[in-house]
Amino acid sequence: MKAFTYYNPVKIYFGVGAIENLKQELTDCGEKILLTYGGGSIKKNGIYEQVSGILKEAGKTVFELSGIMANPRTDKVMEGVEICRREKIDFILAAGGGSVIDCSKAIATVSCMEDPADFWNRLFVNKEKTDQAIPLGTILTIPATGSEMNTDCVITNWEEQLKYSYSSIHQYPRFSILDPEYTYTMPKNQLIYGSVDILSHIFEIYFSKPDENNVSDDVAEALMRNVMENLDTALQDPLDENARSNLMWDSTMALNGIIQAGKEEDWMAHKIEHALSAFYDIPHGAGLAICHPAYLSYICHKAPGKFARYAVRVMGCDPKGKTNEELAEEGIRKTREYFKKIGAPVTLSQVGIPAGAIEKIVEKILLIPASYTTLDREDLKKILNSCI
Amino acid sequence: MKAFTYYNPVKIYFGVGAIENLKQELTDCGEKILLTYGGGSIKKNGIYEQVSGILKEAGKTVFELSGIMANPRTDKVMEGVEICRREKIDFILAAGGGSVIDCSKAIATVSCMEDPADFWNRLFVNKEKTDQAIPLGTILTIPATGSEMNTDCVITNWEEQLKYSYSSIHQYPRFSILDPEYTYTMPKNQLIYGSVDILSHIFEIYFSKPDENNVSDDVAEALMRNVMENLDTALQDPLDENARSNLMWDSTMALNGIIQAGKEEDWMAHKIEHALSAFYDIPHGAGLAICHPAYLSYICHKAPGKFARYAVRVMGCDPKGKTNEELAEEGIRKTREYFKKIGAPVTLSQVGIPAGAIEKIVEKILLIPASYTTLDREDLKKILNSCI
Repeated sequence: MKAFTYYNPVKIYFGVGAIENLKQELTDCGEKILLTYGGGSIKKNGIYEQVSGILKEAGKTVFELSGIMANPRTDKVMEGVEICRREKIDFILAAGGGSVIDCSKAIATVSCMEDPADFWNRLFVNKEKTDQAIPLGTILTIPATGSEMNTDCVITNWEEQLKYSYSSIHQYPRFSILDPEYTYTMPKNQLIYGSVDILSHIFEIYFSKPDENNVSDDVAEALMRNVMENLDTALQDPLDENARSNLMWDSTMALNGIIQAGKEEDWMAHKIEHALSAFYDIPHGAGLAICHPAYLSYICHKAPGKFARYAVRVMGCDPKGKTNEELAEEGIRKTREYFKKIGAPVTLSQVGIPAGAIEKIVEKILLIPASYTTLDREDLKKILNSCI
Repeated sequence: MKAFTYYNPVKIYFGVGAIENLKQELTDCGEKILLTYGGGSIKKNGIYEQVSGILKEAGKTVFELSGIMANPRTDKVMEGVEICRREKIDFILAAGGGSVIDCSKAIATVSCMEDPADFWNRLFVNKEKTDQAIPLGTILTIPATGSEMNTDCVITNWEEQLKYSYSSIHQYPRFSILDPEYTYTMPKNQLIYGSVDILSHIFEIYFSKPDENNVSDDVAEALMRNVMENLDTALQDPLDENARSNLMWDSTMALNGIIQAGKEEDWMAHKIEHALSAFYDIPHGAGLAICHPAYLSYICHKAPGKFARYAVRVMGCDPKGKTNEELAEEGIRKTREYFKKIGAPVTLSQVGIPAGAIEKIVEKILLIPASYTTLDREDLKKILNSCI
């Protein structure tokens, strides 16, 4: 195992009715609350009313930032920052999925900058360190990004067609409320894309060095099997509390640091996807279903033993009489077939991205040193061309 | 999954050389440090010298409490409390295994009580809440109890022959340093008993309701397989860094709340063992190797499906043509055989506990509502009689 530091102070309230802990959590978070949410689904499913009631009962002064959509953008961050600075917001309460939480984290950090104007370059491009953020709490409605229990946020700069991440220890939510019932009314597509996102996070960590026997990989395999089993159940019966509970906790566990312990991690597939959705505003999980298997196919010969292990332990491939290379390919093929089966797109054309766009997309991909191998733009072009 | 709250703010520094983080962690922990340790093995393996050097360099005034032995007792706690109160200790640094850490946690809490004299009855018997403790950090040398990343401590009252636990959120270590190299010189018995203890913690959580498909059980299975694989390796090659790393992180993961998420937990086998070692001062892991399989045999008919799952997924039993009941028994038999193979005792006579002592031991066992079934003293007598 590689040396690591693990520190994650987020308090998780999990289970049906977990919202009952909100009032107590609000006691020492100040008077002025910014409630952030997305397109209004929380008004339809009753969460808005429930949360507003608790805020009112707690005697808080509530401001709102609504309309935070998928792939949240810099201008939405600035809209929130203006409210926070103008109203001297004490605490941000984010109710939604990863986009709402990520946007809220960025607002929390940028609001505390002396001069927020150039936050994009300073934080998201140059990764400047910040030493504070407005404290925030989350109420999760879409299991997917894991943002409810980590320090990261991903924001899109639509003008520059860039989608970058920023991480700060001050962006840990103080608490996150995870009620599986809140996910019952999630549109089917979000359930599918969210689950692909969870699997993709696990891939990024699992398919990285070191590969020798280590407990983090064992735990990652358990999580991957669990996501697939429970997604299948949730697709058949959207009201299955147990399947919803598992998926919700899987999303958190995939990216709260536990399976990252002692691993290098990779994240190249995410960088490819970020370029896809920065140009075409497709759902993150849809982009990942397309490019992640293609990326794995391209690099699997660098670590055939690990990919063979995945094929057998996670995708149920029979190893008899097969080489590691054959098993590796079979495992990835089965993954792509699985994505097809659950209704995720597996080609660029399915989401309306023309082959002719690959060149410009590739130019925008953030090249990073990945784990098994480091790619250049020619490699990336080949990978995206294999997704047409 | 059952509703749960998860909160664990312990900062973990893991890996060879992790001690280099100690100096920085000491910056805001005050001037007066109580260094606690056991029988002096840290003086032989160089850890004492290394830590003392860092404390000196950091300009701390250091007091020491040494000689904390396995099954730490109330009088040792009071010895530490006297130092803390007399010297106004700011921070406790515990270097050792679970006994050293547990004793240090108790000292940390009891030192802050207005009147420490009756701490046993108030905290360990009546579980009175406390609202503070001297902050502490740990340097782990024996992977076993998981105390390095949780709120619990277990203390023995030798006069009353009772071994009870106390838990307080203020007993979370501020940081824990986990260097697998620190475990290389551990006596073989401690390696074996520590690993049994890790497995036993996982059993207590895994063999409890709810049993339906849940990610915590999947993760628990991954951990159990990992412990057995890596113990086998570490027994063959005590200097195998990877095996030592896995065992060390397994011990932490077994009891840091992660696999407890959504589970009832049981802990009856631990209560039985606590009575054994409160009377006979045997190593905790030795007692568990004797009584835990016997306990599982006694209750397995209450959840044959779960025990069959364990047999297949963890102990590698072939399910073909077998009933769940048969598999359940086979899985437990294989567990007992595994304990024998690694050199742990599996009968009371092996550790010098006579059959005639069972009656008085049973009287001291703390009866708790367990998960699958709740036992009375007659049941406990039968279980211990099956261990003769």
